[in-house]
Amino acid sequence: MKEHPIGIFDSGLGGLTVLKALRKALPHEHFIYFGDSANVPYGAKSKQTVTKLSCAIAAFLQEQGVKLIVVACNTASAQALPTLQKQCRVPVLGVIEPGAQKAVAMTRNHKIALLGTEGTVRSRAYEKAISRLSKKEKVFPQAAPLFVPLVEENFARQPATRLIAQHYAATLLRKKIDTVILGCTHYPVLKPLLAEIFGPSVHLVDPSDTLAAQVKSYLSTFHQARAIGKGSVRFYVSDDPTRFKRLAQQVLRAPITRVYLKKLSV
Amino acid sequence: MKEHPIGIFDSGLGGLTVLKALRKALPHEHFIYFGDSANVPYGAKSKQTVTKLSCAIAAFLQEQGVKLIVVACNTASAQALPTLQKQCRVPVLGVIEPGAQKAVAMTRNHKIALLGTEGTVRSRAYEKAISRLSKKEKVFPQAAPLFVPLVEENFARQPATRLIAQHYAATLLRKKIDTVILGCTHYPVLKPLLAEIFGPSVHLVDPSDTLAAQVKSYLSTFHQARAIGKGSVRFYVSDDPTRFKRLAQQVLRAPITRVYLKKLSV
Repeated sequence: MKEHPIGIFDSGLGGLTVLKALRKALPHEHFIYFGDSANVPYGAKSKQTVTKLSCAIAAFLQEQGVKLIVVACNTASAQALPTLQKQCRVPVLGVIEPGAQKAVAMTRNHKIALLGTEGTVRSRAYEKAISRLSKKEKVFPQAAPLFVPLVEENFARQPATRLIAQHYAATLLRKKIDTVILGCTHYPVLKPLLAEIFGPSVHLVDPSDTLAAQVKSYLSTFHQARAIGKGSVRFYVSDDPTRFKRLAQQVLRAPITRVYLKKLSV
Repeated sequence: MKEHPIGIFDSGLGGLTVLKALRKALPHEHFIYFGDSANVPYGAKSKQTVTKLSCAIAAFLQEQGVKLIVVACNTASAQALPTLQKQCRVPVLGVIEPGAQKAVAMTRNHKIALLGTEGTVRSRAYEKAISRLSKKEKVFPQAAPLFVPLVEENFARQPATRLIAQHYAATLLRKKIDTVILGCTHYPVLKPLLAEIFGPSVHLVDPSDTLAAQVKSYLSTFHQARAIGKGSVRFYVSDDPTRFKRLAQQVLRAPITRVYLKKLSV
């Protein structure tokens, strides 16, 4: 299995921030990235729909012979992880658990803010994961649904995005939180702006570093790591590979040779 | 057929602005509204995907016995109308043709701006429809993809939306356009703001009034109109009826008794 690729999926482009963290931590590994561009965004979809789509993607990744599946999407991690872990033959890791661990390790005053999509917030998955780790923490959730389209439209540095971020941050700042979970893979793109708005005393938690460390530790413990050679990525999307290629190259700041089209049958 | 309902569909909530115009013009008619909430938004999807979804919805509406189908979504009208008109047993009307007619009737200096989704702009459907009507007009397209999520998130009156609208309007204003087509069913919600930004000398064209007049004229010409009695609407969505009901009541400013779930099989 060592030589087999790692599967990673997201509703669209956001998971590329997770892919970046994984490639940095695991430079020898091969990856298969699946972006569900036909069904993006997942944020406002029902749990049932998100689960059905996630299972179809996981089935495809297993057909490709992956040794491990990373659910890069917070909404899918929050809503579909238990079902995926039950149905898949390979281990499945989500981003919620790593995000919760890092937040609990970071907070000093035990007031943790969660920025996420409607689906992630509604699922209370972060609250549950945090309370399994520690009973002392109080979590303040804030849905920030406009961040995804703003990032996808390359508006991260526009003044309008600052106003919208200030709008979402206002309530959280009044609660005196000292830690903010960036509970959606698109949000790390806004990290410089959010750092400015929340100020230097607030920690911003991007779950992807902790996730990458977990994947690394799993591969090494179970002797599944590819120890030498250059890693690679193969990209699949469920709609419009040309558009994905253009935008993904901007996010990754690196050229992509090819993006394959793979329609999902759900 | 007189007693049969009129089918109308959209990728989500936006088509409710078209439904409003139709109900105003045709108070005796029954309507079946289908919102494809499992696949919203259509704006950045490929032509092939939009066509496949539109055909599945049209098939469902025909099973419900509709006498006419209105494609309220600009993206679906721009990309799928010819296929729908070929495949359906009942007449199918889109929003592009009425929008083009009204814009041509309104402009004095023959410089028409088009605000629309990426898909609508890329299709050049408005340009083609306008050039069939008149060779004198010049069309300036501007994709405004953030308007859909801003409207869906109830941000229409926020300062951030003004900044984003100014950003999209800037190039068009420099071109001295005198008419702007609101080429997406979500955009009429932003009409007061856009009227302010474009100023009193620019006409804002909402295709839905002209569309409603066309539907009325068709029904009367072919003796298909329901002449008496109170009209009604039955709502179907492909995901999360509860969420749709809550948001649709805000848009329509009227209570909705029930929203039915109808999954699409594509």
